[in-house]
Amino acid sequence: MRAVTFQAPGEVRVDEKPEPELEAPTEAIVRVEATGVCGSDLHIFHGRVGVEPGFTIGHEFVGEVIAAGDGVTEVAVGDRVLGCYCTACGRCFFCRRGAFHKCDEGRVFGHGKVLGSLQGAQADQVLVPNANLTLRRVPEGMSDDAALFAGDVMGTGFHAIESAGLEPGDTAVVLGLGPVGLCAVQAAKAAGAAQVLAVDSVPERLEMAKRFGGIAVHLTEDDPRAVVKQATEGRGADVVVDAVGHPDAFDTACRMARKAGSVSATGVYAERMEVHMGVIWIKALDIHTGHANVIGHVDRVLAMMASGVLDPTPLVTHHMSLDDAPEAYAAYDRREALKIVMTP
Amino acid sequence: MRAVTFQAPGEVRVDEKPEPELEAPTEAIVRVEATGVCGSDLHIFHGRVGVEPGFTIGHEFVGEVIAAGDGVTEVAVGDRVLGCYCTACGRCFFCRRGAFHKCDEGRVFGHGKVLGSLQGAQADQVLVPNANLTLRRVPEGMSDDAALFAGDVMGTGFHAIESAGLEPGDTAVVLGLGPVGLCAVQAAKAAGAAQVLAVDSVPERLEMAKRFGGIAVHLTEDDPRAVVKQATEGRGADVVVDAVGHPDAFDTACRMARKAGSVSATGVYAERMEVHMGVIWIKALDIHTGHANVIGHVDRVLAMMASGVLDPTPLVTHHMSLDDAPEAYAAYDRREALKIVMTP
Amino acid sequence: MRAVTFQAPGEVRVDEKPEPELEAPTEAIVRVEATGVCGSDLHIFHGRVGVEPGFTIGHEFVGEVIAAGDGVTEVAVGDRVLGCYCTACGRCFFCRRGAFHKCDEGRVFGHGKVLGSLQGAQADQVLVPNANLTLRRVPEGMSDDAALFAGDVMGTGFHAIESAGLEPGDTAVVLGLGPVGLCAVQAAKAAGAAQVLAVDSVPERLEMAKRFGGIAVHLTEDDPRAVVKQATEGRGADVVVDAVGHPDAFDTACRMARKAGSVSATGVYAERMEVHMGVIWIKALDIHTGHANVIGHVDRVLAMMASGVLDPTPLVTHHMSLDDAPEAYAAYDRREALKIVMTP
Amino acid sequence: MRAVTFQAPGEVRVDEKPEPELEAPTEAIVRVEATGVCGSDLHIFHGRVGVEPGFTIGHEFVGEVIAAGDGVTEVAVGDRVLGCYCTACGRCFFCRRGAFHKCDEGRVFGHGKVLGSLQGAQADQVLVPNANLTLRRVPEGMSDDAALFAGDVMGTGFHAIESAGLEPGDTAVVLGLGPVGLCAVQAAKAAGAAQVLAVDSVPERLEMAKRFGGIAVHLTEDDPRAVVKQATEGRGADVVVDAVGHPDAFDTACRMARKAGSVSATGVYAERMEVHMGVIWIKALDIHTGHANVIGHVDRVLAMMASGVLDPTPLVTHHMSLDDAPEAYAAYDRREALKIVMTP
Repeated sequence: MRAVTFQAPGEVRVDEKPEPELEAPTEAIVRVEATGVCGSDLHIFHGRVGVEPGFTIGHEFVGEVIAAGDGVTEVAVGDRVLGCYCTACGRCFFCRRGAFHKCDEGRVFGHGKVLGSLQGAQADQVLVPNANLTLRRVPEGMSDDAALFAGDVMGTGFHAIESAGLEPGDTAVVLGLGPVGLCAVQAAKAAGAAQVLAVDSVPERLEMAKRFGGIAVHLTEDDPRAVVKQATEGRGADVVVDAVGHPDAFDTACRMARKAGSVSATGVYAERMEVHMGVIWIKALDIHTGHANVIGHVDRVLAMMASGVLDPTPLVTHHMSLDDAPEAYAAYDRREALKIVMTP
Repeated sequence: MRAVTFQAPGEVRVDEKPEPELEAPTEAIVRVEATGVCGSDLHIFHGRVGVEPGFTIGHEFVGEVIAAGDGVTEVAVGDRVLGCYCTACGRCFFCRRGAFHKCDEGRVFGHGKVLGSLQGAQADQVLVPNANLTLRRVPEGMSDDAALFAGDVMGTGFHAIESAGLEPGDTAVVLGLGPVGLCAVQAAKAAGAAQVLAVDSVPERLEMAKRFGGIAVHLTEDDPRAVVKQATEGRGADVVVDAVGHPDAFDTACRMARKAGSVSATGVYAERMEVHMGVIWIKALDIHTGHANVIGHVDRVLAMMASGVLDPTPLVTHHMSLDDAPEAYAAYDRREALKIVMTP
Repeated sequence: MRAVTFQAPGEVRVDEKPEPELEAPTEAIVRVEATGVCGSDLHIFHGRVGVEPGFTIGHEFVGEVIAAGDGVTEVAVGDRVLGCYCTACGRCFFCRRGAFHKCDEGRVFGHGKVLGSLQGAQADQVLVPNANLTLRRVPEGMSDDAALFAGDVMGTGFHAIESAGLEPGDTAVVLGLGPVGLCAVQAAKAAGAAQVLAVDSVPERLEMAKRFGGIAVHLTEDDPRAVVKQATEGRGADVVVDAVGHPDAFDTACRMARKAGSVSATGVYAERMEVHMGVIWIKALDIHTGHANVIGHVDRVLAMMASGVLDPTPLVTHHMSLDDAPEAYAAYDRREALKIVMTP
Repeated sequence: MRAVTFQAPGEVRVDEKPEPELEAPTEAIVRVEATGVCGSDLHIFHGRVGVEPGFTIGHEFVGEVIAAGDGVTEVAVGDRVLGCYCTACGRCFFCRRGAFHKCDEGRVFGHGKVLGSLQGAQADQVLVPNANLTLRRVPEGMSDDAALFAGDVMGTGFHAIESAGLEPGDTAVVLGLGPVGLCAVQAAKAAGAAQVLAVDSVPERLEMAKRFGGIAVHLTEDDPRAVVKQATEGRGADVVVDAVGHPDAFDTACRMARKAGSVSATGVYAERMEVHMGVIWIKALDIHTGHANVIGHVDRVLAMMASGVLDPTPLVTHHMSLDDAPEAYAAYDRREALKIVMTP
């Protein structure tokens, strides 16, 4: 079968590989019908996340179950399913508490050794461990484009809002309007935010944020902190989502939050950095961090997408063939696309 | 000044009364610009809630502060304000925990001795105790019709949803589509419900529920319990709001909820009644009851109304003069109106 | 192997039965080392809960895993384990939300067809479905007597407190001081209750409640409602646990709770009954019901028992041989025992 | 009257000052019967927190109400009361949400201009703004020594635990065993922690931690991170309280927490600092910060102290006269005392 593999920084390739085989009763194999290219894939593409050359990448997929072990009960051969970006066992200390994203045997698709050596989904077929929790049936009538988001990007946008404890009537700010940030804008509105200030400097993204119910705030042409103050009688926002993952964004997020407010650091952080702990502390902020608990939220996200409360499909800017993966990565790298969906 | 008074079951009258005067530093006086007739007023009109003859009724109002004691800091003379249907002190055991609806000195406007002997708001002027919490400034640009709802009917619909713990992605059912039920439909959608099944037998109300984002279910022409099952893969609803206040409605609500689901008894109960505790218990339901904590939610409700997330104004079917109060009550009693706004 | 079977109301027998065999990869077999007789067993003994004659009863057990399917990862052959009274799959809608007690394939040990046809644990061996969640390893140094409680009676007492939302500093009331009620007293203290009023009419039980940190209140010799008022500046209790399961107890519980308080109906209800909904509603009570989510709490309960924060072992009044099961049931029926532990 | 004033770094003095007078109807005046010296006072003593020379310091007090404005309803002249370290209005956006510690007109006693120019409590009398929320009646039978803690140090220890979301059965770590850390140890046990690992390097403090129910861990002679791992099957603690307020302590706290765990930065932070955001993020930690919401917790803390669930009085190592304030500060600075109570 075909599989998109990482070769070297800046180089991915479509390789021929043997089809996966079931090795445990809780596994399933999915014939991929659509697979996305995501911002995290760019980290791999650039070599910032170290993946072994030849490893299959990709962690967003929709397809049909073509094989399933005896222990797979929640989906069956023939089902049209979507995959979550990572797996969860449902049995460990963390899963028992619903923290599926921190499962003791959690593995992320397509991220090489460092995240569990689980071959990726940009391929004709993908092997899915712990399929009962990792896969969900696609609700009837939902497109591939939509379903792809539930297990990764919209799941993450929703998590940002949920983990930050947004309540109906709150004012939220989302910093950084990549696909996750834009999904967070939509999720915040769907969860009842009275107003969502969406901050970026790319006009197309600001335009999309407006379409998603947000109030567009230009990072440099407007004065975002002043806009937040004005929108909140001077208090600052109840909830701020940092969907960037950069010390400056985090600092801005903390300064935009009101006293006793909450900041969700949804963008990826991997390093030491300086923070103004004095600002955080005097305001008594709560800070929420980490990967999204997509499995914990996927039922809700799917339900909201099925009824049209959430609709991330406007984010799909490109449809390409799996064979054109190298070009897809290049286009994504040139920031020409918000979401590329590849079809095997 | 003019004041609408209860006289006898089925009889209200516009009386001339002296204007109120400040008696405590935490009081304010509001010159009423709009006042609503509410379902609770009908209980008084029918004599089911005993109010002393001559007592001024009404508990929904918008107007201008024309006098305020020294201790009133949150609003000022000249402010355009709305009133909550009941008062709260902000100091007692219950207020300190945010349970403003159970304030130890809480009083309800226009309900006679039994709820605190606080003269009502269907008058030219109304005296407002504990004005700091009982009044809110009307957000700029909000109409009287809208603002009226924040302190009573929409506050109650929102409370039904909030107290039941609705989470984004849930399926909710609202039984009974009077003004509170219809507001609950809208509030549920605003808070992220994937679907809201709205049950009643009056076509106009079902139509309004659809306009508010609900799925109309006819009480007798459809099979509501079957519809709920079908909408939830057979499970039942995550949250059910009983906006009726009748043993049959409560029983239906419990039967429509899923295992470990939640029922909000928002309709008024005052009597002993039979419940099927076996059904409740085996499903492990949570039951939430009581008057709405409107003061606890009013900031959020106003914020959502100000940004258009909530808009109850389609419920206003009649505008009348305060002088026509007897006719307003008669029309409301004939169920010709959803919400009547009277202007002094 | 030997197995205690229900024969007819008032009659249990020790039968010889074939040893269980694994039929699914997620099952385990436990050689029973200790098994308890519980209040629920009495319902079966009296014929109030219909169990097929010849069915093995009992749902509390500690023992050693002697066989385990391939899919059993959380315990291993040779492990000393305790069982929860019911099973959970970890995969369904309810388990994914942590509502393990409402698992779609949940079965209760030893309760016949009506609760899943799962043979009981008062036997030499017991077959355990979904062993990953249903079994837990016994912490090192914990006695059989203690461990038995974690999966049933203490788990239920703890659930009563947890589901009612008790917060540190609250005043709790526990009505009914059977083993579950007594465990609720201890759990309430452990969770930070400032005072726990423990109500019953049996002196030994009141004595035990005191030993567990409660304040003993005699049901008839004291005036329980007056005592609760006095202990709470007239307000009523923050949390009331009805550990009886009788309409009078539920009514008393509602009357003892403060405004906006919470009542946990932990005692079993199976029938229609009259409630004073007016009292509940005007106080704005929250009512929590149903079987305990023991699997959801068992890690915490075991941790608290391991460190001595909880210690239910004083409740064990009798140790008997499995062979003497008929006498054990008779003694329990005569209310001579709080907890009987039988050893095969 | 006598008043302890800050003069210069390292110098406090007992000055003669005019008695306070009521200036607003919500104020009260308390004749001080006991007042504590706290760690925060040392920051002032050392000049790290800038207070104007001649400003009265001190923020812990117990005494008798000797005057009260018309708007003071929750306490009365003649009542024995304790003060919270800061004030809250009960009316603003933050108070309405129960975030009393972030009240828009919140002022801290004895901290000079920067925290609201509110004269301190180390004096014969103290003027108390917003007395309804700032003062509480001392429960009958509670000593001055105990009551002093409710409004400051125990309130803060309790807040650390509460804000971190500790649940019964959790393992907690407290870093730094000054009075606040020791109170956090006791509060964690009271709230149901299965085990509380208490880390410091001072033998007396470790001894006190044991007395308060903690497991003493020596900062350098033991290997605290290894001890935490061992106590949690390698996972790390559910909740970690940093009661130090130093970048190293915060880093250690983050490293001791389990995945999806929670860190409460209770020690004071005022500066920029480096944090290992990668560690925090990959573990998906929640970070809670800021001053304690003492007013929000004081009812609960008092209830727990009144019933003996909490008892901070062993922390009182010295009783001195207000006249000896200079010596009290010197002794506290030499770390000879955990808590000094001064009597006017």
